[in-house]
Amino acid sequence: MKKLLFFSAVLWTFLSTAQSVRNEILVPVIPGYEVLKCDFHMHTVFSDGTVWPTVRAGEAWQEGLDAIAITDHLEYTPNKEYVPVSHGTPYVLAEKTAAGLGLILIKGVEITKSMPPGHFNALFVKDEAKIHQEDYRAALREAKAQGAFVLWNHPGWKAQAPNGAVWMPEHEELFREGLFNGIEVVNHYEWYPEVLGWSRDKNLTVFANSDVHDPILNFLKQENLERRPITLVFATERSPEGIREALQQGRTVGWFRNLLLGKTEWLETLFLASVSQRIITAGEKTTTLQLTNLSDFAFEFAESENPEKVTLLPARSSVILKVPRTESGTAYQVRNLLPGPGEPVTIKLPLN
Amino acid sequence: MKKLLFFSAVLWTFLSTAQSVRNEILVPVIPGYEVLKCDFHMHTVFSDGTVWPTVRAGEAWQEGLDAIAITDHLEYTPNKEYVPVSHGTPYVLAEKTAAGLGLILIKGVEITKSMPPGHFNALFVKDEAKIHQEDYRAALREAKAQGAFVLWNHPGWKAQAPNGAVWMPEHEELFREGLFNGIEVVNHYEWYPEVLGWSRDKNLTVFANSDVHDPILNFLKQENLERRPITLVFATERSPEGIREALQQGRTVGWFRNLLLGKTEWLETLFLASVSQRIITAGEKTTTLQLTNLSDFAFEFAESENPEKVTLLPARSSVILKVPRTESGTAYQVRNLLPGPGEPVTIKLPLN
Amino acid sequence: MKKLLFFSAVLWTFLSTAQSVRNEILVPVIPGYEVLKCDFHMHTVFSDGTVWPTVRAGEAWQEGLDAIAITDHLEYTPNKEYVPVSHGTPYVLAEKTAAGLGLILIKGVEITKSMPPGHFNALFVKDEAKIHQEDYRAALREAKAQGAFVLWNHPGWKAQAPNGAVWMPEHEELFREGLFNGIEVVNHYEWYPEVLGWSRDKNLTVFANSDVHDPILNFLKQENLERRPITLVFATERSPEGIREALQQGRTVGWFRNLLLGKTEWLETLFLASVSQRIITAGEKTTTLQLTNLSDFAFEFAESENPEKVTLLPARSSVILKVPRTESGTAYQVRNLLPGPGEPVTIKLPLN
Amino acid sequence: MKKLLFFSAVLWTFLSTAQSVRNEILVPVIPGYEVLKCDFHMHTVFSDGTVWPTVRAGEAWQEGLDAIAITDHLEYTPNKEYVPVSHGTPYVLAEKTAAGLGLILIKGVEITKSMPPGHFNALFVKDEAKIHQEDYRAALREAKAQGAFVLWNHPGWKAQAPNGAVWMPEHEELFREGLFNGIEVVNHYEWYPEVLGWSRDKNLTVFANSDVHDPILNFLKQENLERRPITLVFATERSPEGIREALQQGRTVGWFRNLLLGKTEWLETLFLASVSQRIITAGEKTTTLQLTNLSDFAFEFAESENPEKVTLLPARSSVILKVPRTESGTAYQVRNLLPGPGEPVTIKLPLN
Repeated sequence: MKKLLFFSAVLWTFLSTAQSVRNEILVPVIPGYEVLKCDFHMHTVFSDGTVWPTVRAGEAWQEGLDAIAITDHLEYTPNKEYVPVSHGTPYVLAEKTAAGLGLILIKGVEITKSMPPGHFNALFVKDEAKIHQEDYRAALREAKAQGAFVLWNHPGWKAQAPNGAVWMPEHEELFREGLFNGIEVVNHYEWYPEVLGWSRDKNLTVFANSDVHDPILNFLKQENLERRPITLVFATERSPEGIREALQQGRTVGWFRNLLLGKTEWLETLFLASVSQRIITAGEKTTTLQLTNLSDFAFEFAESENPEKVTLLPARSSVILKVPRTESGTAYQVRNLLPGPGEPVTIKLPLN
Repeated sequence: MKKLLFFSAVLWTFLSTAQSVRNEILVPVIPGYEVLKCDFHMHTVFSDGTVWPTVRAGEAWQEGLDAIAITDHLEYTPNKEYVPVSHGTPYVLAEKTAAGLGLILIKGVEITKSMPPGHFNALFVKDEAKIHQEDYRAALREAKAQGAFVLWNHPGWKAQAPNGAVWMPEHEELFREGLFNGIEVVNHYEWYPEVLGWSRDKNLTVFANSDVHDPILNFLKQENLERRPITLVFATERSPEGIREALQQGRTVGWFRNLLLGKTEWLETLFLASVSQRIITAGEKTTTLQLTNLSDFAFEFAESENPEKVTLLPARSSVILKVPRTESGTAYQVRNLLPGPGEPVTIKLPLN
Repeated sequence: MKKLLFFSAVLWTFLSTAQSVRNEILVPVIPGYEVLKCDFHMHTVFSDGTVWPTVRAGEAWQEGLDAIAITDHLEYTPNKEYVPVSHGTPYVLAEKTAAGLGLILIKGVEITKSMPPGHFNALFVKDEAKIHQEDYRAALREAKAQGAFVLWNHPGWKAQAPNGAVWMPEHEELFREGLFNGIEVVNHYEWYPEVLGWSRDKNLTVFANSDVHDPILNFLKQENLERRPITLVFATERSPEGIREALQQGRTVGWFRNLLLGKTEWLETLFLASVSQRIITAGEKTTTLQLTNLSDFAFEFAESENPEKVTLLPARSSVILKVPRTESGTAYQVRNLLPGPGEPVTIKLPLN
Repeated sequence: MKKLLFFSAVLWTFLSTAQSVRNEILVPVIPGYEVLKCDFHMHTVFSDGTVWPTVRAGEAWQEGLDAIAITDHLEYTPNKEYVPVSHGTPYVLAEKTAAGLGLILIKGVEITKSMPPGHFNALFVKDEAKIHQEDYRAALREAKAQGAFVLWNHPGWKAQAPNGAVWMPEHEELFREGLFNGIEVVNHYEWYPEVLGWSRDKNLTVFANSDVHDPILNFLKQENLERRPITLVFATERSPEGIREALQQGRTVGWFRNLLLGKTEWLETLFLASVSQRIITAGEKTTTLQLTNLSDFAFEFAESENPEKVTLLPARSSVILKVPRTESGTAYQVRNLLPGPGEPVTIKLPLN
């Protein structure tokens, strides 16, 4: 084989298939829902990014995503000497590429203000340019008037929150007026534990977004990431409307490295749909299980009573586990499933 | 992250989880069957291999296999100065390891004769030593008397078949007497197209076995293989008896590199259970499809009428394909699904 | 370790080093020369590429290159509705990034005509806009007047040469007038054996260029390439002038997959500087050698008299080889070192 | 290319080169010394290992090592029912394989006592069986009488040192009698910071050994290691005697993950021979450097005055660094070069 390969190299010119391949991300089947892999925050040369809008559609499809929003800054356009400001253009340019790939493209923008209140993404907008207003309240009200879903971006970004994320009076005011309903718990290469707490306490929809400016593969390589931050959306249908409804109902989980962040209900659902068991031997005191995870998530768990002894269950793999034999099962903390900071989800083993 | 990782390295000693992980091989669900991943040919220090029998159980489990047979040579035991001959021992030593992992261990041996008739594996044997007889007919009859399933190993092995595999009168005689019912179409790092033809014409059960002597990871690395040759067994239950019944009924497919070798029926079943489609756009002349393959198989296909334009659909991936719009669908040859040499399976696209 | 890593993930937010790393390409030391890794053909959003010019500098540095030329089309600017034509701008925008990385940035353009005579790159230009002329002779004469080094791009590109590369009367005329002195033997994902012959017969400087339009990592992934096509330049100093002098003197080798294409002299030099030997045993009839290759090139060789038995010597590796013991050494063909099509370089083993 | 590859798979059987490749480990040239990559602790089926002795030679050569010692337990031979005890045999069996590969094979054994004093490896022994004595003093004296170099193995192994390594009176007594002169600072998958301190204070030769029992690739995979623990030996010649002299003189460095452990002198030597610099720009206040590391070591450093800002310099890579411009250079701690626990080596940048 190796020999043939080398011969080929010498004897013939190379044929390229010029064929694009999409790497599928394996998520479990959740009856009643499509688990859509989404990224709602990214940039192009039309604001301060370094790629053409079509690149965003192509690279998302190849990485296995189902939906994206290009969200160029309205107020920050450092390339404008060479690329005149044109707010609706990134969507228009990427639309055909996305359609040819069956990728859902959400029309969006980033409202870019100094702190407070910082940056906000408006998704499902109708007219980007109209949202470009100096006053942040005016901008957010226009977004709302257009029916947009709005999230607060990177509340813990050091450039705007050097001492960590702060919920300021301005945020409280905007929140009470219903001008934003989601929040980034993960942005780019960091996550904000305190913001996860807010999301739960204030019932804000959780987002994990890449905020990528460079080509995505450059970003992943530089940050040593296997994949970008992803917002998992539990949609009743695979469509922009399906996504909007799920965002409004808070049916999302943020996925970043091995972390899954969101409501307990959805984290448990993901775990139980991903992991199955086989009983290897049932002894008097312990049951030996094989736990199998056919998803691309990884799980890390420890007996609640014995937190030192951690078991890792990587993507598409199985492990053998000895579980104490008790009447009602034994509690395990799944340490990478977090509804709140430092509060992992608990499951019982053996599974029912 | 990278920073933390490095800090850890300097500040703390390392904890090992001492935890074994099994990489799952993704095969599609086939209603009514368990698709078991098996290897029925391998050696240990008890014949001319270089590992202890327990290694064979551990490495098979880790690679994602469901069942193996250790088949040390009865007649060739070059280590005997240091490891006295003891035919039943490899099974006995590996049994406990296999049981602790839920791996099915089939009791087997390799009957090792010069050509003709060459080497044969007897599986599901009862008493290895009794099969160790000078006369090959006597050995095979004893195996049959024990209820063994017997296959002819590596018919195209150059050391015994320098000009390619030959079906000699001796093989015909053994075959007519029902002394073997299976045949290796793949052994170690090679496959034998002509033998694939025999398997179909004579209704011999197809095998793809590793015949590994060294540690399996050494073998895979040296031969640049992603995984060992695997015999896929379509069993009605996950048990030794389930496997035996499937072998007797010829419900196997040999898997080697990207090749899948066996009966048309099972190759089609594997393809259709692995690949799904989504219609991206339906034009007047062509339909644009996304074909998605969530299995660990790869597929390679070309329009029957247009064989130059090949589409590759790797494991866990999707591709976009433009299919001519016709009433009854368009025929494609799936070039790596072979019931016979040079006779790929044909499927129709769009899928029904 | 794994355990610590996972704990970190759960307990802390992630620190990014925000640090760029350059993967060094290992080339041997050639006394008197710097072996510079260069790519003289690539595009940005200022013609039909999809990235901002700074991306080209960053990705080349990270891939281990020493010098690049951004060569946007003068005549083909499909983004001009959004990015007004501005010929000198890509160089200006990338200049600062390149300087901060110590990357040599050559000022260049692609003169883009239909066939004949096709596309030409002019390197070391002074005023891009002046070269933008309808008549190709005028354009090439202006490039020459500016002191540019000019090469004919992708002579075998199927869109312009459907039946393979053809040296037309127009090329002969330009060549005689000295309007081009180099030629791409490799472009993007293909190489042209017949053009390698021309380069040798007409003493044209050999180029292997990426002609990349997308982000480079997308290109490498889609084409399953370990690295882009690279023009190795043997320069007496690491500077633009050093490169220009080497191009003028024809001191280049094209590197693509495992192929090294260029003058015999430089191919031999690369081999002998990359490969060393250790005598393991010296028998009466054969000498057993360990050949060690510490470069990132791979080599593939076979005894001239026994071409079937090929030895592969991958990057940063060694192999054991049994060489017949003769008075003057035994001739081996190094099959991936090609001064002309199908004419590999011959070396003798053992090495002196 | 991909297309051809797949076609090949379907049309032809596969040729194997049956060729073994050695992956070279890149270490810098140190004038006057050969930097040999060694592992002085490993097992086979002749004690409690799971591979045949020849495997140890083959896998070490393939991983890029220069010398190994097989050190089966004298006192612990759990396979003896099937593999009768035969102390000198592993060396005899592996000798020919090692010779054919040019690998240095050191004759050794592991003296295996309960704590105190624990396990000791004797290297360069003459008669293994004679060292097999119940009394540990007698065993170590016999080893010394044979001219062996003796090291204390895994002083911090939890099974024998549940609260960490302890230097007991018995060790002091043996040490004073000169019965051991080396110590494992790294064993298998862990390192012992306190033992590093002992090695420095008592001038014991530092070892990092794999103590591998399973096939090495299984071990590396399970522990997620890129390579085994390695003892770097700075020998004046590439021979058993050269190694013995270097061990006696304490010229070793232990290498494990990214850590390099040993005497300051040799750690500095390794760093300075591995890393070179290029000045990118020299400003008034800072100098911008490119630091290039062509070795397979990684380095991690931080300004001594500013320890938070860590720079990682991976294997075969470069980074850009801004260094304050001062008269005498700026001190940096190289945090993974440790002569003692928590006491990294300091270097100055820019390099002279």
